[in-house]
Amino acid sequence: MLVIGERINASNKSVGQALADRDEAFLANLARAQADAGADFIDVNAGVGQDAREDAPALMKWLVEVVQSATDKPLTMDSDDPVVLEAALSTYRGEAVMINSVNADPAKLRAVGPMAAASKALLVALVVGEGGIPGNVDERLAASDLIMNQLTRAGVKEDQVLFDPLVLPASVDTNQGLVTLETIRRIKSRHPSAKTAMGLSNVSFGLPRRGMVNRAFLLMAAAAGLDAAILDPLDAKMMSVVRVADMLTGKDTACRGYIRAHRKGLLVD
Amino acid sequence: MLVIGERINASNKSVGQALADRDEAFLANLARAQADAGADFIDVNAGVGQDAREDAPALMKWLVEVVQSATDKPLTMDSDDPVVLEAALSTYRGEAVMINSVNADPAKLRAVGPMAAASKALLVALVVGEGGIPGNVDERLAASDLIMNQLTRAGVKEDQVLFDPLVLPASVDTNQGLVTLETIRRIKSRHPSAKTAMGLSNVSFGLPRRGMVNRAFLLMAAAAGLDAAILDPLDAKMMSVVRVADMLTGKDTACRGYIRAHRKGLLVD
Repeated sequence: MLVIGERINASNKSVGQALADRDEAFLANLARAQADAGADFIDVNAGVGQDAREDAPALMKWLVEVVQSATDKPLTMDSDDPVVLEAALSTYRGEAVMINSVNADPAKLRAVGPMAAASKALLVALVVGEGGIPGNVDERLAASDLIMNQLTRAGVKEDQVLFDPLVLPASVDTNQGLVTLETIRRIKSRHPSAKTAMGLSNVSFGLPRRGMVNRAFLLMAAAAGLDAAILDPLDAKMMSVVRVADMLTGKDTACRGYIRAHRKGLLVD
Repeated sequence: MLVIGERINASNKSVGQALADRDEAFLANLARAQADAGADFIDVNAGVGQDAREDAPALMKWLVEVVQSATDKPLTMDSDDPVVLEAALSTYRGEAVMINSVNADPAKLRAVGPMAAASKALLVALVVGEGGIPGNVDERLAASDLIMNQLTRAGVKEDQVLFDPLVLPASVDTNQGLVTLETIRRIKSRHPSAKTAMGLSNVSFGLPRRGMVNRAFLLMAAAAGLDAAILDPLDAKMMSVVRVADMLTGKDTACRGYIRAHRKGLLVD
């Protein structure tokens, strides 16, 4: 499982404060800690409020500079705004990079597709159109077709795309977990070169003991073929479950990673 | 998930001792504790050593009597020996009952099939022939066909059969988890009226932190469609995971069971 460390996100209160204060040490530490804990990519989201919109590209450039100076791990440039993504990519010196995200909105695909093609970036694509998250598998697959079509026309290769199958809260509809798992399986058979990536926490919205539910859903999604997860690598229980998931889905030859993690005292349940 | 409580098994040291001592109170308590913890069936295994083989039917009859006096939950009669199963069924007063187990061995199917038909018992059937556990999905499916064929000829209905897809240790081959999950999915599409049932602990054989691995595999198997699990209902972490699995696979309307378990303090992670 490719782990995308989600902690550097302006929607988190302490990160938002650190951004406002230009607190380089705090953000650099958060980048290093996630890398040390096993993140493969570090997500970088400087998402500022409406009133600060003009400063957004500059703030993102500053944040990318801080994070790439703190760690050699590749970054995931996370923004809804193509202008911010462009600013981030222009500042970035690394080779491997990921963009998070596009969806089936044609304007967004037109803006971000060529950027991803030029920078050879991996690109997270939410299988959602303008009507909100589809409640069924077929509409999500239709969105994936539309996205792949537009992106390949813009020069993006199929293996650059990570489809986010989306998950709605189980508290709203307990069948939504199965819808997401089926979406993962069907996307993978429909676009065999593409990968899948997903954030987990939406599944447990409105429920008690959310961590337990999120970890359970990661295991189910891994068994369905999920390739990458956007999560908190500093959550030792979640990272333990990632290791078990890799082992039980044939991604950990001779259980070496699992046993090494055990010897280092990293397995927590 | 149908929970089959596995604790009353002669291979467990304290249970073996209680059987030798005819310690009715110990065994009755173990039956009640499993029922209270949420077991749907109580497995009853008096499996005695070779030297005591002559006494086996009588011991099983005594044990069934003890357990059915202690709880109203239906029992799972667990023995390799058709004579012991017959003795157990003849003593049993309950309506719902399960037999654990047959496999693709024709002699066993001939002996146990008519018993299951006559008692309308659910019947666990391991998809294994005489050559040991097949390492691939196709051979397990072939075994399931052979079993279903023989059992239906003996008058067993398809919906009485619970196929055990079998799991080999991940420590021997990390692809075996995926083989089992694929076996569950394909058995369910091949024999849509049949169900699936599995013990979990084999998957973690030879690994550290086995509980964590077993729980992870239960979640993956639940997402693949597993209907029943043979497990220890007194393991609060495992039972918590069963509740999460039910919720995330659409078996817990409006998350009511999960939230009730949370309010009772039963969710442990």
